[in-house]
Amino acid sequence: MIEPARRTMIRRMARSALMLAASALAVAGASGKPAAPAALEAAFDAQISSADQLGWLKDMSSAPNHVGSPHDKANAEATLAKFRAWGWDAHIETFDVLYPTPISTLIEMVAPTPIRLGGQEPAIPEDATSANTAGALPPYVAFQGDGDVTADLVYVNYGLPADYDALERMGVSVKGKIAIARYGGGWRGLKPKLAQEHGAIGCIIYSDPADDGYAQGDSYPKGGARPPFGVQRGSVADMTTYPGDPLTPGIGAVPGAKRLTRAEAKTILKIPVLPISYGDAGKLLAAMDGPIAPDKFRGALPITYHLGGGGTAKVHLAVKSEWSLKPAYDVIAKIPGSTLPDEWIVRANHHDGWVFGAGDPLSGNVAMLSEAKALGALLKTGWRPKRTIVYASWDAEEPMLLGSTEWAETHEAELKAKAVIYINTDGNGRGLLGAEGSHDWQHLVNDVAGGITDPETKVSVLDRKRAKIRADAYDKIGRSDEAALKAAEAGDDLPIGALGSGSDYSSFLQHLGLSALNIGYGGEDESGGVYHSVYDSFDHVTKWDDPGLVYGAVLSKTIGHIVLRIADADTPPQRFGDFAATVARYLDEVRKLADDRRAEDGKREALLKKGAFGLAADPLHPISAPRAEAMTPFIELAPLANAVEKLKKSAAAYDTAYAAKGAALSPAARARLNAALRDIDQLLLSERGLPGRDWYKNLIYAPGRFTGYGAKTLPGVREAIEERRFADADLYAKLTGEVLSAYADRLDQARGIVEGR
Amino acid sequence: MIEPARRTMIRRMARSALMLAASALAVAGASGKPAAPAALEAAFDAQISSADQLGWLKDMSSAPNHVGSPHDKANAEATLAKFRAWGWDAHIETFDVLYPTPISTLIEMVAPTPIRLGGQEPAIPEDATSANTAGALPPYVAFQGDGDVTADLVYVNYGLPADYDALERMGVSVKGKIAIARYGGGWRGLKPKLAQEHGAIGCIIYSDPADDGYAQGDSYPKGGARPPFGVQRGSVADMTTYPGDPLTPGIGAVPGAKRLTRAEAKTILKIPVLPISYGDAGKLLAAMDGPIAPDKFRGALPITYHLGGGGTAKVHLAVKSEWSLKPAYDVIAKIPGSTLPDEWIVRANHHDGWVFGAGDPLSGNVAMLSEAKALGALLKTGWRPKRTIVYASWDAEEPMLLGSTEWAETHEAELKAKAVIYINTDGNGRGLLGAEGSHDWQHLVNDVAGGITDPETKVSVLDRKRAKIRADAYDKIGRSDEAALKAAEAGDDLPIGALGSGSDYSSFLQHLGLSALNIGYGGEDESGGVYHSVYDSFDHVTKWDDPGLVYGAVLSKTIGHIVLRIADADTPPQRFGDFAATVARYLDEVRKLADDRRAEDGKREALLKKGAFGLAADPLHPISAPRAEAMTPFIELAPLANAVEKLKKSAAAYDTAYAAKGAALSPAARARLNAALRDIDQLLLSERGLPGRDWYKNLIYAPGRFTGYGAKTLPGVREAIEERRFADADLYAKLTGEVLSAYADRLDQARGIVEGR
Repeated sequence: MIEPARRTMIRRMARSALMLAASALAVAGASGKPAAPAALEAAFDAQISSADQLGWLKDMSSAPNHVGSPHDKANAEATLAKFRAWGWDAHIETFDVLYPTPISTLIEMVAPTPIRLGGQEPAIPEDATSANTAGALPPYVAFQGDGDVTADLVYVNYGLPADYDALERMGVSVKGKIAIARYGGGWRGLKPKLAQEHGAIGCIIYSDPADDGYAQGDSYPKGGARPPFGVQRGSVADMTTYPGDPLTPGIGAVPGAKRLTRAEAKTILKIPVLPISYGDAGKLLAAMDGPIAPDKFRGALPITYHLGGGGTAKVHLAVKSEWSLKPAYDVIAKIPGSTLPDEWIVRANHHDGWVFGAGDPLSGNVAMLSEAKALGALLKTGWRPKRTIVYASWDAEEPMLLGSTEWAETHEAELKAKAVIYINTDGNGRGLLGAEGSHDWQHLVNDVAGGITDPETKVSVLDRKRAKIRADAYDKIGRSDEAALKAAEAGDDLPIGALGSGSDYSSFLQHLGLSALNIGYGGEDESGGVYHSVYDSFDHVTKWDDPGLVYGAVLSKTIGHIVLRIADADTPPQRFGDFAATVARYLDEVRKLADDRRAEDGKREALLKKGAFGLAADPLHPISAPRAEAMTPFIELAPLANAVEKLKKSAAAYDTAYAAKGAALSPAARARLNAALRDIDQLLLSERGLPGRDWYKNLIYAPGRFTGYGAKTLPGVREAIEERRFADADLYAKLTGEVLSAYADRLDQARGIVEGR
Repeated sequence: MIEPARRTMIRRMARSALMLAASALAVAGASGKPAAPAALEAAFDAQISSADQLGWLKDMSSAPNHVGSPHDKANAEATLAKFRAWGWDAHIETFDVLYPTPISTLIEMVAPTPIRLGGQEPAIPEDATSANTAGALPPYVAFQGDGDVTADLVYVNYGLPADYDALERMGVSVKGKIAIARYGGGWRGLKPKLAQEHGAIGCIIYSDPADDGYAQGDSYPKGGARPPFGVQRGSVADMTTYPGDPLTPGIGAVPGAKRLTRAEAKTILKIPVLPISYGDAGKLLAAMDGPIAPDKFRGALPITYHLGGGGTAKVHLAVKSEWSLKPAYDVIAKIPGSTLPDEWIVRANHHDGWVFGAGDPLSGNVAMLSEAKALGALLKTGWRPKRTIVYASWDAEEPMLLGSTEWAETHEAELKAKAVIYINTDGNGRGLLGAEGSHDWQHLVNDVAGGITDPETKVSVLDRKRAKIRADAYDKIGRSDEAALKAAEAGDDLPIGALGSGSDYSSFLQHLGLSALNIGYGGEDESGGVYHSVYDSFDHVTKWDDPGLVYGAVLSKTIGHIVLRIADADTPPQRFGDFAATVARYLDEVRKLADDRRAEDGKREALLKKGAFGLAADPLHPISAPRAEAMTPFIELAPLANAVEKLKKSAAAYDTAYAAKGAALSPAARARLNAALRDIDQLLLSERGLPGRDWYKNLIYAPGRFTGYGAKTLPGVREAIEERRFADADLYAKLTGEVLSAYADRLDQARGIVEGR
């Protein structure tokens, strides 16, 4: 499902996800071997074909392929056949997952003017498959709560916590009302979840043209941006609590699994929710009364946005779903490792879409198929990887990472015992390299990116990325990331971003503790304009997102080189100093967060005491003072800070030792070293998990409780400060320090092996 | 004409002009006497009546009152009669000024679809005078160049230098085209001036709903914001070169004055220009082709903004004007000083409008009339001011400060010899106090503001202002001004802003060198939505801007107290340390400007050398690299820095000496002291004037060449750095140092008098 912020056009809207780059001349990492033989990579690259990808994409996106649809199953079976034809050991693993589909959806304005809204998106002549919606689901969101409600509307902007703070200060409440939120600003599911928590009885989500419509570019089909009748579908299952089948948290949704009832499942909403187009939403918003919405609530519709709540605009919203279990078909394919068969590299993309899914996910899925075909071709030359390569094409990602999560939970023990890394992709497009993941792999990603040629500029994709970061900073485009800019200027490795959620890496990284990477190209595509709509089609992808699937081939080569280098390395090329430096940066951020919060608390307290907010407010447009809050105390960060210092030392010592002596290890020492390092990232888990959501066990990386897609690093501490759970902040500073300390101890142990102790 | 940025709603759009506040308990300034007797101010306040103001406003705004209209003359005559009735020595002084009025205006789209646009704004039932447009001028801009052109359109955003830089990088030129610019971002006249300089053959200016329309609030008459058919008129005479009658720069437009020809007048444009509504502009912009406009160009119309230039949208634009001289009727009224008749306090507001002018300027003009009536009433009690009080109601401010400039130029010698200060107001509204001016008066303004009660909150207007600055900073509303915030937090005097241009103070401050203040209330009004349109009416003012003219009365009291305290002081209450500290702050800004420019130049050079802009650009949406520019050198700021240091010392020494001994001066010493200080601000002039615009002689305060309304302080140096005239920067650092040094010398002389030397 990959977040739309990553899929829009960077020339107009900068990406916040961090990217990577490094000198094309960089040598391999301190703990890595020199790059896999260039000849092998060249042979691999020679097999990558955009023409292949175009053919597969056209076929796989020719009919609706949502979970449970005939074409979804057909795609899985065709994929299985391909893997087998290419020499892989492949099978389909099926899970029975809860997946509600709508029986009926209804949305109509009942006052001031009765207008029927909603329904399927219309066909347009320039988009061939848009006429093939027989069998497609209408616009809806999965895992809302069925219901039939009629109420006054309240406009809640993006529907995130800051928006509710603003509404409260303006005296507007969603209690007993239907909240209307616009897409963007954070993960979709937070909007109805927070509306529900604030007492709303229903929720409507629409795509404002400010965010992915005409304000961003010409509307499809003239351009790639969202047309007035385009609707974003999606899941609203509460992934910030846990992803996967809502009925089987923590275990696989296999026959005989102990399932929760729907009522017990914490991730299913209680209120009805529907998504609509801005063509429809404009009619509602124009009819609303109440205070004029504050600046930040303003979208690009040609109206004065009002908050509503005064009873003028009333809506009838009704959703009824069919709640049976549906089959999710995961295609799993392996090439067994020749010498280290119990060390696995897992690499995957999902294959289910919301309608035709050409961009999301199939543009990434066909790049993966190219890699699989190329690896198959290498097999035919007699090559065998040292480690086992596992490729997977997940089903049921869109409803909430169901296919990957159920597989991860089912195979937890084996994955924890064998996996070296999980590598993910999702929709892909024209533009710049983007990469997020576990920072011990940061240098490898940079190293590989230095050897991949950007087809538009003929420099390496990381040299292009470095130029982009510097030029954007000069031109003040987007939020400038200081660490990335400094690295780009110095010619150092560029930082990779941290993983939040929004695609299939989540279970592997955040529940099992495997190290993970998520990689894709984009920023020059316009996929954001058709994201999760009928128009995410072969025609859109090939006209607006990646003509000729040129960047599909670039993605295949990028991932292929990463896979090959890890698969054939004597010891996987991790660099722990990068991880330590990154965690140190996160600690600095958390420190600053606490300090800034404390300063802000002091300011607020002083202003409240003076009555300054009352004096400042316009009595004809009243805004009340912010709530009084307890001062943010000094957090007991010392245990965490000490652990970070220890980690930095241990990592530097290990990296130095490996650089000096790593090439000459005895086979026995090598085996001990690889065993010590293979599961080192799993040490970052705490069995206690994060507060209120113990499925999430990784104490370094998590999706934000109030961002969803966006990562929160050192989440136990950071979110506790943000949410004023100060005892939790103290506790998790200690717990996080402990896992980092264990990680450092493991590095010391590894260094001992390298140094022959 | 007062800039619209000052007239819009701060609850949604923060004001950049700085404001003032000080502790209500603050004692009088170091060099000032204690406040004028409270009893006198109370007697004055008792005479101030909002009901009076409502009656005058209704009458004065009942018919079109632009220069040359019958009602404009009637307003001047009625004002004269009032002054006389109130006991003032009053007369009308008439100037014959060039003032073009349209004979015909035409604007039509000729391709892709013929549509006739433009014409007078329609009557609306909720606005009584909007039906009285017989005799009103149609929407136009004064001092454009007549012409009849047909050409392709290019959208230039705000039409300011940064916009042309962006256009150049996107490969779009206005050469031979008609530029269409939106209002805002800087002074109106810069838009056609820069279009002309870049080769455009015509210019259209429209009001985008993002800036003063539905994006800011409900449209008039539902709310106060600009309706789709509202048009902003205005002058485009090049005030950044000189204001006043274009034919008589530097001299009064009196009978027999040596006049330039129209062709010789540098401030008259050469290309035809018309303003239009967004209802009209939307039709043009929707038809345009060319590259998609960058983010910053995007307004709030429901379209994708394109830059044009590809020949799709063609416009026919024709303007023909009647260019005769018209009479400007300045009403001048005096109360002679009892003991110091040759020390003048000049206080004024203009009375001409673009149509009915109820908000701009009459809301301020009727506040001034209230003061005049109250001062007249004091006269009847036997009170006589020590100094002469001169009140003026200017005509012909709207075409470009004609009435005030011609008067100032005509009476230059007398004003330089007698004026202590020039105090200006213009349109006024509900909200917060705003003040700009000469910083030696900063403390007086703060002191007075501490004694004026805000009617909405019942605290002093400066306590409210202080609260507003702090609350806005906490809520991150608007650009935070560090100096103002620090002062607000500390309870110190708040800084007043610097004067640029946009109202009648310009000649007095920037050409004659008198010290000046400009004061008004606003920020909670919605006058920006009808600025310079037919709907700037009594109905709009009393419904949306200042119901009951409550803030009209507050303005009268504020100005009245300032006038009384200066008029009756033994020595006028200036505080020179405030001026010195402010200039020191400006020097810091200029230093930082040069350093920042140098750093940016270095970055650009490095990126150009690497070809980074080419690598970063999306080849399907190309943006070229910025122009190479010479590096900003180190500027010879030392002479200026030394003078500022000297000024700080001299000012502190004088203020301290006066605080200690000022109350006990002998009459002779007092007379010498007053003579030494009365014209001290005139020492800030340089006869050489500013580069390329020698009418502007003040080396501390000027309107920006590329901002117009916005002030540039230390303009000779600052603008030279900005515009890469580095030799000028060195030269003006020296010249500015010299005038500040002379100012410091004068303070030393004054201290000598105070200390009995």
